[in-house]
Amino acid sequence: MRPLIIISNDDGYEAKGINCLIDMVRPLGDVIVCAPDGGRSGMGCAFSPTIPLTLTLQREEAEGLKVEGEGLKEETGSLQMWSCNGTPVDCVKMALAELCGDRRPALVLGGINHGDNSGVNTHYSGTMGVVMEGCMKYIPSVAFSLCDFRADADFEPMTPYVRRITEHVLRNGLPRGVCLNVNFPLLAGAGGKEHGASDYSGVRVCRMAFGTWYNEVSKFQHPRGFDYWWMVGNYRNDEPDAEDTDNWALQHGYVAITPTRMDVTAYEVMEELNSQISNLNSQI
Amino acid sequence: MRPLIIISNDDGYEAKGINCLIDMVRPLGDVIVCAPDGGRSGMGCAFSPTIPLTLTLQREEAEGLKVEGEGLKEETGSLQMWSCNGTPVDCVKMALAELCGDRRPALVLGGINHGDNSGVNTHYSGTMGVVMEGCMKYIPSVAFSLCDFRADADFEPMTPYVRRITEHVLRNGLPRGVCLNVNFPLLAGAGGKEHGASDYSGVRVCRMAFGTWYNEVSKFQHPRGFDYWWMVGNYRNDEPDAEDTDNWALQHGYVAITPTRMDVTAYEVMEELNSQISNLNSQI
Repeated sequence: MRPLIIISNDDGYEAKGINCLIDMVRPLGDVIVCAPDGGRSGMGCAFSPTIPLTLTLQREEAEGLKVEGEGLKEETGSLQMWSCNGTPVDCVKMALAELCGDRRPALVLGGINHGDNSGVNTHYSGTMGVVMEGCMKYIPSVAFSLCDFRADADFEPMTPYVRRITEHVLRNGLPRGVCLNVNFPLLAGAGGKEHGASDYSGVRVCRMAFGTWYNEVSKFQHPRGFDYWWMVGNYRNDEPDAEDTDNWALQHGYVAITPTRMDVTAYEVMEELNSQISNLNSQI
Repeated sequence: MRPLIIISNDDGYEAKGINCLIDMVRPLGDVIVCAPDGGRSGMGCAFSPTIPLTLTLQREEAEGLKVEGEGLKEETGSLQMWSCNGTPVDCVKMALAELCGDRRPALVLGGINHGDNSGVNTHYSGTMGVVMEGCMKYIPSVAFSLCDFRADADFEPMTPYVRRITEHVLRNGLPRGVCLNVNFPLLAGAGGKEHGASDYSGVRVCRMAFGTWYNEVSKFQHPRGFDYWWMVGNYRNDEPDAEDTDNWALQHGYVAITPTRMDVTAYEVMEELNSQISNLNSQI
């Protein structure tokens, strides 16, 4: 039996990125998509405890043959695509609880996101919400993002990377509590000329860069006289010279793989905090 | 000049928890509250890129004298309380961008949350969203939560702990990229009898427990015939015997302080992943 792959995203089930991802990995397994019914950018790990959630079947295809871009015929797994009115995390929870039947998914994939999810964006990203949720259910999980916000971004050059990384994780799994955050750089001139996989500088295993959003709110006045604000902002890499970060790799044309922990404990400060706490205990 | 303290939460500005927190820390600084205009539980680090945000001034008080519970007169800082139609993270971003003027906050506090934010709940918690946002702005940040979901939960016994921890962080700061997630246990018989600070077993510095939500969705049928689901669920501690976890501490009556990282890189797997990636690079 083929492995079962769950896919979700935060751009909604109709986005080009998720549909490209489906095509890339369908030869590797049966695919169940449960994705938001529209854009849910910036939702992070949010879930919806207060609204009734609904599912709508959008597409269903049996396993079968499919002609690949390289002219090879490959067998593909089956596909079910559902839309949901909730967040990316809701989608994964719904897929696991209601759409997999007795099958245990081998993999949860997020993306392909239209836009960067590196650095501190990790925390805001609904695409990362998808894979953190998979990770919290102890399922190997991988997020794919492309540093190109355009609706018609060109995902094609990513194909062999997405395939190899997905195959690798299907074969080897991931350590418990660790998921992968994979970001692809914007290739120079993207949108204007054709690119291929060889235009990437290669793959780098990275750490998350420290960066800061600034100028985050933009103030306007409503015709009725009150103020309102749009969340916008610019991002600054706070350690631009650190060559081991995801931000650096992306700026230099590399595919950045950041292994990401579900356990957010700051172990390195526990000992010092412990010595301070004993003091605190005695004060109360 | 007094230090400036920003406070937000995910239960909304009218919740008892945030108003108790304000009273506890007002003697320590000037306080600006920017909190959601209603409940935003489960929002994690979500922010709102697609809706216009608004602010409403709910309360404003000058600095002044105030009679404390123990009968001591203490000077309190000034207070501004704003409500916002966004998420907990939006509230912090708005406070930093629009409400602090030229002052740099010394502290961001989240809570006091009505309910537990230990274990994997860290990722879903809007209270933790507040302090992660503070942490991402390099401001020392502390989340306080009480394992009691009731609207009229008794926060009083927490007072000396909240005061000492807040004073400690104001005095010593926190390492860059580290915030504190402080959870208080439900005291036996809470709601039925009076408790004091001495009813807690003490304070423990903990790591985040691995745990799992299950039975997360509950299916219903709408009168018009379609299915819908409520997000609910039960939590299981997956390492109940591990005495170094926040879940264990709370179950044994301790106040659990979990130092929490903004850098979620899984450093411990980077070397192995690196050796696998070189293989991957050669396949493409």
